Amino acid sequence: MTKLRTLKVALLGCGNVGAQVARILIDDADMLASRAGARLELAGIAVRNLDAPREVELPRGLFTTDAETLIKDADLVIELMGGIEPARTLILTAMQNGACVVTGNKALVAKDGPTLHEEADKAGVQLSYEAAVAGAIPILRPIRDSLSGDRITRVLGIVNGTTNFILDQMDSTGAQFSDALAEAQRLGYAEADPTADVEGYDAASKAAILASLSFHTRFSLDDVYCEGISNVTAADIAAAKDAGFVIKLLAIAEKLGAEGTRTGTETGTETGANGATGVSVRVHPTLLPREHPLAAVRGAFNAVFIEAENAGELMFYGQGAGGKPTASAVMGDLVSAARSIVLGGPGRAETTTGQVTALPVTAAVTSYYIGLDVADQPGVLARIAQLFAEHGVSIEIMRQTIHRDADSKVESAELRIVTHRASEAALAATVEAVKGLDVINSVTSVLRVEGV
Amino acid sequence: MTKLRTLKVALLGCGNVGAQVARILIDDADMLASRAGARLELAGIAVRNLDAPREVELPRGLFTTDAETLIKDADLVIELMGGIEPARTLILTAMQNGACVVTGNKALVAKDGPTLHEEADKAGVQLSYEAAVAGAIPILRPIRDSLSGDRITRVLGIVNGTTNFILDQMDSTGAQFSDALAEAQRLGYAEADPTADVEGYDAASKAAILASLSFHTRFSLDDVYCEGISNVTAADIAAAKDAGFVIKLLAIAEKLGAEGTRTGTETGTETGANGATGVSVRVHPTLLPREHPLAAVRGAFNAVFIEAENAGELMFYGQGAGGKPTASAVMGDLVSAARSIVLGGPGRAETTTGQVTALPVTAAVTSYYIGLDVADQPGVLARIAQLFAEHGVSIEIMRQTIHRDADSKVESAELRIVTHRASEAALAATVEAVKGLDVINSVTSVLRVEGV
Repeated sequence: MTKLRTLKVALLGCGNVGAQVARILIDDADMLASRAGARLELAGIAVRNLDAPREVELPRGLFTTDAETLIKDADLVIELMGGIEPARTLILTAMQNGACVVTGNKALVAKDGPTLHEEADKAGVQLSYEAAVAGAIPILRPIRDSLSGDRITRVLGIVNGTTNFILDQMDSTGAQFSDALAEAQRLGYAEADPTADVEGYDAASKAAILASLSFHTRFSLDDVYCEGISNVTAADIAAAKDAGFVIKLLAIAEKLGAEGTRTGTETGTETGANGATGVSVRVHPTLLPREHPLAAVRGAFNAVFIEAENAGELMFYGQGAGGKPTASAVMGDLVSAARSIVLGGPGRAETTTGQVTALPVTAAVTSYYIGLDVADQPGVLARIAQLFAEHGVSIEIMRQTIHRDADSKVESAELRIVTHRASEAALAATVEAVKGLDVINSVTSVLRVEGV
Repeated sequence: MTKLRTLKVALLGCGNVGAQVARILIDDADMLASRAGARLELAGIAVRNLDAPREVELPRGLFTTDAETLIKDADLVIELMGGIEPARTLILTAMQNGACVVTGNKALVAKDGPTLHEEADKAGVQLSYEAAVAGAIPILRPIRDSLSGDRITRVLGIVNGTTNFILDQMDSTGAQFSDALAEAQRLGYAEADPTADVEGYDAASKAAILASLSFHTRFSLDDVYCEGISNVTAADIAAAKDAGFVIKLLAIAEKLGAEGTRTGTETGTETGANGATGVSVRVHPTLLPREHPLAAVRGAFNAVFIEAENAGELMFYGQGAGGKPTASAVMGDLVSAARSIVLGGPGRAETTTGQVTALPVTAAVTSYYIGLDVADQPGVLARIAQLFAEHGVSIEIMRQTIHRDADSKVESAELRIVTHRASEAALAATVEAVKGLDVINSVTSVLRVEGV
């Protein structure tokens, strides 16, 4: 065997994922060399605090606080610090120096992807970030490469393990949100400050990245409508369960209307509200039929469901977080980048020739699940149905449950409605109007439905 | 926008998949040009019979019976003829001429992969065949690229839609194999001669390809143990269902024992029978717990479940056959190959530095489900349990069901046993010994179990 060349790898950050990446680079050096066609030498690990405890025991001499110097000689830079700065500047500098960059920084890619890609193109280096979305699951490369000859029409993703664990707990135990969150925190699935996860911000970054790759157009975080799960109640979950649904926090990117001259293709792309055409990117709690492939994704697992014109329905499933799974995605990117350096040529880049428009959430077309506490009077159902019809919203399922006390006296009447697909605006207006009816005691839940 | 160069595409074969590929090349020419960075011009379609009916209306002038001449000027050749010859010679000639080749020919790749890859390397062209395994599902590229920094330990695939449809029918309706097969034929899911599907040969080709990529070693069809579903009875399915299992035809490739110096890693690679180390590649009907992700794969869908040291469990799900889904995979390969021509450089190749050994099925370690019709005598269970123990096979579950007639007289006694994991050889010897017991009326089923 001829002597392999050596490529220098600089690692920025040494948290859960970084420590596992360092371990793999050291322990599996021979395997990586055979896969990449070059030896990958871990030149150093830049950290803020040299004395912080690490998940994995690593040679003390590798650590430095001087990231700027470390990246100067690197052929490959792995950024796992998180946050916008100094990560952004270090990545840009590394690429200007000619290094290929692998990052897991979803917030940075979602916020400033265009700048990073522009710099990568200018420098002729690879920028890859498979680890930024859905941890170990190979999803960005399949979208970019494997589906490059197809048209993706819709992406539905469970891309945040924390919220999926919480919703799954609520579904299986009947717990309230706060108790399920506490359990998730106790088990290490949720952070002390869970805001980024439970309010959907983490999922929103991933939605922007998935939408950008799927629709060949750069979307940023600002294009994503975002609603978290902190308002989802045990009663919502129970009612959904009773109706054959499960509630998931979904990252959704879907094409509405024509792309170019194609309207009404066989896969049934529908036009958005008021004939809007473009892509709706949003994150919100969503009802899914229990038989939908995504409904079976339990605990902290992630999955991404894709619909494409020719491929049809695809699903990718796996661990969405954790040191080792995320490190697997980082290493896949690293070996691929190394291989492109060895083989020469600029390697594969994303295309952004799609030029589709990001639509506001009001243009989205979806179904609603609406729970109502109603008066038990004759004609209530008819009045409500009439009001839906006036707003152009068609009802798919309407079910009334009467709760009686021991003497068979009516205590309350509960009405559950699942609508057909309609525009967000029409649905919101309908709900507002319903609230104004004198026969309505309260609107107990309003949730979006997909997969029906 | 600068004027794009044009790449000539030759299509060999125009069946279900080929016709869809031709349609996409013509209808979506602009989209493909933007994705590939070059215009992809369909130069011609080679067929045996110019007058055969086609799925899609295509310009008559594109057709030719002269494949040899067609491929001479092509930059990209798509082979969808199937069979070994003349496909093999045409592919080798095309690559010698400098063309990149995309094929969906699983039989050819499984039989003669090494020759094809050698020629591709020598000519410096890309050879890709995503469509050969699991139709639309991106699986080969994720294994090759996304998991290139990880160690795959096991692959379990539902890779044949015909048999999955038949088994699913049997499971949901209680039908016998022959009736479910007839239904599959009626619906177009099974061919008039279903041998290649139901006897597992099609799945065996795919198993060889999956094993080769997953373990970085070229395996051929000869390395695959193959057992089809024609002997699976309605009673087997019912008994499995009753015990919480579903029966699937799985393509399995799993690592047994150490690779290099790594034994007993955290993901628990176990040694094969008699300490064998290597890869066991096999296709057989298999019991899976109903809660296993693969158990939910219904109808003609395909799915591939992967376990890797760092990534953990991954699953890829989608349509495994059909003109459009398979065409999507072909087009992904074609655009990727075109892009590599445009960008220059040799593009990404497979690595085969794994050098692991293909093990015979007797080295496999698995669990068995065994159904027995036994005499209703005291001490029967104890004698059977003793016999298992003597063969070193540990019993996980043993359940006896007594069937009585209207007068409460015992008609028959049924014993169902699920073993712990043991070597194929020990299990086979145990079953042989059980057959010899005088208290056994018959062995009603012997099936392998995974996912427990």
